[in-house]
Amino acid sequence: MIKVLVAGFMGSMGQKTVQMVNENDDFELVGAYNPGIDVAHMQGMGLSNNVKLFSSLDDIETDADVWVDFTIPSAVFGNVKFAIEHGIHPVVGTSGMTTDQVNQLQDLAAQKHVGGIIAPNFGLSAVLLMKFAKEAAKYMPDVEIIEMHHDDKLDAPSGTAMSTAQMISEVRGDKPAPKSEESLKGVRGGDYHGIKIHAVRLPGYVAHEQVLFGGKGEALTIRQDSFDRGSFMNGVKLAIPAAAKATDLIFGLENIL
Amino acid sequence: MIKVLVAGFMGSMGQKTVQMVNENDDFELVGAYNPGIDVAHMQGMGLSNNVKLFSSLDDIETDADVWVDFTIPSAVFGNVKFAIEHGIHPVVGTSGMTTDQVNQLQDLAAQKHVGGIIAPNFGLSAVLLMKFAKEAAKYMPDVEIIEMHHDDKLDAPSGTAMSTAQMISEVRGDKPAPKSEESLKGVRGGDYHGIKIHAVRLPGYVAHEQVLFGGKGEALTIRQDSFDRGSFMNGVKLAIPAAAKATDLIFGLENIL
Amino acid sequence: MIKVLVAGFMGSMGQKTVQMVNENDDFELVGAYNPGIDVAHMQGMGLSNNVKLFSSLDDIETDADVWVDFTIPSAVFGNVKFAIEHGIHPVVGTSGMTTDQVNQLQDLAAQKHVGGIIAPNFGLSAVLLMKFAKEAAKYMPDVEIIEMHHDDKLDAPSGTAMSTAQMISEVRGDKPAPKSEESLKGVRGGDYHGIKIHAVRLPGYVAHEQVLFGGKGEALTIRQDSFDRGSFMNGVKLAIPAAAKATDLIFGLENIL
Amino acid sequence: MIKVLVAGFMGSMGQKTVQMVNENDDFELVGAYNPGIDVAHMQGMGLSNNVKLFSSLDDIETDADVWVDFTIPSAVFGNVKFAIEHGIHPVVGTSGMTTDQVNQLQDLAAQKHVGGIIAPNFGLSAVLLMKFAKEAAKYMPDVEIIEMHHDDKLDAPSGTAMSTAQMISEVRGDKPAPKSEESLKGVRGGDYHGIKIHAVRLPGYVAHEQVLFGGKGEALTIRQDSFDRGSFMNGVKLAIPAAAKATDLIFGLENIL
Repeated sequence: MIKVLVAGFMGSMGQKTVQMVNENDDFELVGAYNPGIDVAHMQGMGLSNNVKLFSSLDDIETDADVWVDFTIPSAVFGNVKFAIEHGIHPVVGTSGMTTDQVNQLQDLAAQKHVGGIIAPNFGLSAVLLMKFAKEAAKYMPDVEIIEMHHDDKLDAPSGTAMSTAQMISEVRGDKPAPKSEESLKGVRGGDYHGIKIHAVRLPGYVAHEQVLFGGKGEALTIRQDSFDRGSFMNGVKLAIPAAAKATDLIFGLENIL
Repeated sequence: MIKVLVAGFMGSMGQKTVQMVNENDDFELVGAYNPGIDVAHMQGMGLSNNVKLFSSLDDIETDADVWVDFTIPSAVFGNVKFAIEHGIHPVVGTSGMTTDQVNQLQDLAAQKHVGGIIAPNFGLSAVLLMKFAKEAAKYMPDVEIIEMHHDDKLDAPSGTAMSTAQMISEVRGDKPAPKSEESLKGVRGGDYHGIKIHAVRLPGYVAHEQVLFGGKGEALTIRQDSFDRGSFMNGVKLAIPAAAKATDLIFGLENIL
Repeated sequence: MIKVLVAGFMGSMGQKTVQMVNENDDFELVGAYNPGIDVAHMQGMGLSNNVKLFSSLDDIETDADVWVDFTIPSAVFGNVKFAIEHGIHPVVGTSGMTTDQVNQLQDLAAQKHVGGIIAPNFGLSAVLLMKFAKEAAKYMPDVEIIEMHHDDKLDAPSGTAMSTAQMISEVRGDKPAPKSEESLKGVRGGDYHGIKIHAVRLPGYVAHEQVLFGGKGEALTIRQDSFDRGSFMNGVKLAIPAAAKATDLIFGLENIL
Repeated sequence: MIKVLVAGFMGSMGQKTVQMVNENDDFELVGAYNPGIDVAHMQGMGLSNNVKLFSSLDDIETDADVWVDFTIPSAVFGNVKFAIEHGIHPVVGTSGMTTDQVNQLQDLAAQKHVGGIIAPNFGLSAVLLMKFAKEAAKYMPDVEIIEMHHDDKLDAPSGTAMSTAQMISEVRGDKPAPKSEESLKGVRGGDYHGIKIHAVRLPGYVAHEQVLFGGKGEALTIRQDSFDRGSFMNGVKLAIPAAAKATDLIFGLENIL
């Protein structure tokens, strides 16, 4: 039985984590932390009486094994530092830390022998897609990426598509895309070290990515669809036991698969 | 029984036409024309003795009902003019005529009451895709196009993708694509009156197109794959009887479907 | 401005209809009906004061042009009869009427010159898929259907897949599927007049259907994805003005597209 | 430089191998074997003078490092035995050996320290699909398989689909498919230890396979398309150097990736 504390438990992802932990026989929710909200209010959230509630980092006293963090960019570094220093293994889904901050935490974790996981994406399908794309590119280096998102997503390409391109690029190196003459500018997409990336924005779509490989007489396509952010819980569920026994602070869910 | 003459019968598409006509009980091959090749040589091509062979336009005497033309850009206009003037209904798959030339031929056809069909694409799947895309866009105006071809195709986007965009644009009018901020230039594709077009070039691929429609909570995708230019014969087979009874020179296979 | 009454407005689809009507400048919500709930309770639902609330059919007095019905199988026949008799054009999304009931209502509508629409599926993408599939089958009669739904859906195939097969079958007639030898029983799917149907059930999936056409050297695929039942509102929005001017009771959204 | 002998070099796959070896700077064609055809005839095949031609196993004298075998079921066992005994590393694409024969050859290879590769499928995309599917099933055990082939393929499911199911089943064990009620028999597909398999047969299609994984709120799909048997050469090209240094007789291309 792994004892879990959820930081940011009143947010949308925090709530999903609470629910997932409660549904899982291998996990026990022992603490819930959300700054700036008084404990009386938190008591109305329907948690079991065995769950200790905290509204300030200083107050936290817990025997939790794992600290799941879905808080905010400005708080996450302090939270994870606190967890490691108190021997609690972090599972971090909050975005916004700098590379330097991640490095500092990794040093601290190594020194304290309290490992854990920081992951920009806890969606299993997205992480598996990236892992497989990286592996396929060794054998089928001709590749393009198409990501598709709802029309409210302003930035393009998606972070996952860029990460995929970076991972592919590591194994196949620079390789120019086939020569083209665009009669309509931009039609051949964006170019990341010779990997063409295309971003589609349409209402109705949620978050989807395809990696297309072509070779003589054949094609391989890997596609993932995220219909719902609840899919992140699939990854958090895997990360909790892995973090509990980690001695390093691992970056990227793919590194525990 | 429709009597057919094949112009350019020694080329790849001409040969496929000869084979298709021979396999079809409703058609009879009565003439085969290929300029610049002596008739003695043509006799070795395995055609039936009933097929009259011609190596020059001037020599052609035929009772053909339909003239199927897979020749070359410089010859097609003269060929089709000859056919109409001699009361033979043209089915034209040769590319390269100007809009002006097509208009001239349409006028001639109307005047002589000898109609036929000129089609840039005889692939049924491509033509159906365009037809359906145009219809869907009335109800689902949010749309993007992805075309995928082999890596030797230099021009982008494909002619079919551009035609698709034009047909969609006719029904939905100008509608800007969702606002985006590209962190990698070109990633949002080419823009045709607000319709984003993406072109993929990969070895192994042949000729494929997808039209993606999105609406609140739903998506519709129409995809066509051309694995082989032999697929053009599916369209030529439909075009021959339609041309035989046409009184206008129709442009586009979709207009007989 | 079309005046709308929503029957079953407290249910999930009714609520979506209320919201859609309120967001649309061409429609005005003038009545809301939900049996068995007292009007005092209904007043707390946040509707405008101009909306008349009814909890019993007998009490309804309204100048509504259109009656949108998302109620229950046992109530829908009576509701639609009431609407037509009072000159209100019905838009019916409630399932459960028999063919005989539908016929009776169609007779009544014709007699009263008060038309409307009954549709088993208001998802635009699903209706367009069926329409296009029927048309494509004229030219590409070799076809199979794959439907994909969440793993809680017990019945297979889906109603939409069966309707698609029926519509295709009408145009292409009986045509046996290619001969196969199954080394694993059932692998070639179900057979509806020679059209093979395959049903996939997986967690994460919502409601999706693909129709695959194959021809010599080419393929055409039409796919629709329903991510959310909110997508039904796309169809209801189209149905309201069409119903308002209909003089017959039309069955199937495809017949107004 | 790896010296290669091609057995069955006059067949379709043998010819493709000859061409691939000739185009590759790391390989040298030193021998070509085809039983039952006189050497004089073989000399007309356009091979370089440095290639020794053999029409009988007994006559073969060669310094080849690797023996690529695309022959016939009745000959392959004898050929591979001959190769191993003469210190030539086999790359075997010929089908038809029994498990017992494969085991015998593996024993012989181990004893002689002359390894190689036997692969039922040299298509890289198919092999990568199987490998990834096996890995994904550890994390996303809910899975179905759809294979799609041309309408002349009589047997269903395809060998690759069955192999995929077997590999997935090894890692996820028995897990019943979701409960369904079929209103049309067979619609839920074939069942291999709880993995549903669906086979599509349509003209135009070549050889394609999809593996669909579903999890809470997400989906992962791996798809491969073989447009042309020439794609097998992508795998043979990888297998030759791997075989040349193998000390075991490896079964399955996936085991060298």
